[in-house]
Amino acid sequence: MTGGRPRSAGGRRPGETLTRDAILEAAMESFTAQGYSATTVRGVARAAGVDPALVIHFFGTKDGLFDAAVRIRDIPLRGLSEAVEGDPGLLGERLVRRYLSIWEDPEAAPLLYAILKAAATSEAAAELLRHFMTEEILVPIAKRLGIDHAETRATLAGSQLIGLALMRYILKVDAIAGVPAETIVRAVGPTVQRYLTGDLTLT
Amino acid sequence: MTGGRPRSAGGRRPGETLTRDAILEAAMESFTAQGYSATTVRGVARAAGVDPALVIHFFGTKDGLFDAAVRIRDIPLRGLSEAVEGDPGLLGERLVRRYLSIWEDPEAAPLLYAILKAAATSEAAAELLRHFMTEEILVPIAKRLGIDHAETRATLAGSQLIGLALMRYILKVDAIAGVPAETIVRAVGPTVQRYLTGDLTLT
Repeated sequence: MTGGRPRSAGGRRPGETLTRDAILEAAMESFTAQGYSATTVRGVARAAGVDPALVIHFFGTKDGLFDAAVRIRDIPLRGLSEAVEGDPGLLGERLVRRYLSIWEDPEAAPLLYAILKAAATSEAAAELLRHFMTEEILVPIAKRLGIDHAETRATLAGSQLIGLALMRYILKVDAIAGVPAETIVRAVGPTVQRYLTGDLTLT
Repeated sequence: MTGGRPRSAGGRRPGETLTRDAILEAAMESFTAQGYSATTVRGVARAAGVDPALVIHFFGTKDGLFDAAVRIRDIPLRGLSEAVEGDPGLLGERLVRRYLSIWEDPEAAPLLYAILKAAATSEAAAELLRHFMTEEILVPIAKRLGIDHAETRATLAGSQLIGLALMRYILKVDAIAGVPAETIVRAVGPTVQRYLTGDLTLT
């Protein structure tokens, strides 16, 4: 069964790739349905019909498994980048509007919930969240605007967006959760706009 | 040992109060050192030298234990309320400055870390965090300013403050964590100021 068989791009045998995919699918199912803390390598192995040792062999730890499982999904936050198109003076509002619509999309929300909740207990999840919000989305936007201190500006914007999701979707504070999305867009859009393009003294 | 012995204000016998206090001390020690997820009723009982059944009898669940343990501490965020004194135009900056100094106080920080991290996995911790940031601190400030929609304004300010702590102290994103506190105060102060006192269309 070895020898001249074709290998996938990563140098893996086709059967190995199928097994990995089955494990990652079972892992994502568990992370989104039960959360990070309640997910175990043993439970994922059982759901995927493999030995727990194989999960460890492929992914090392639960953190490694989380990281790999999240990365194969198309993280819905990527859609945020499209907000850069349009009137530059309304970039903040467009970003917040799109961000809320992603959190309110039943397809996308479970993965975001899983990542945000896991970030509190897992270094890997925290790093993943940080990486996505800043390096992959907000820093490129800030750089494209050609403004100084792109990283700090992007991280300030990210801090507001993550805090907003926490209050509205995780803690479900009525004063914010019970308000129409467009009201939030008008309140929070200018904050994001100022962080990304405003006159900040960041030295 | 029962009979005519004096009882504490809550109607408890002195010995019972001592046992409760020992359990709460052991619980807080575990919640701050090991975090919410890793803390168990059994472990707290062992550290306090009592039977786990007694912990359940007093506090019901781990959530109940967390809630009681945090409430006996003087939550350091109360100090935020003092920021209301002074130039009203600089309220936002004073709030952010004081908030950062609390997070950077080695006495106060472990409890705040424990609460913020626990909020992601525990409904009780999330409710506690929400309650403190909004009802106990920010809503009274907003109401004292006599402005409309005090709850929504306070929660918007809270969303920025919690997101900021997450980025700077939990995720430790270098672009924000590596910047002097006063730089953050100047960047984020106007956001909090606008949420609390600015012209927002909240209807």
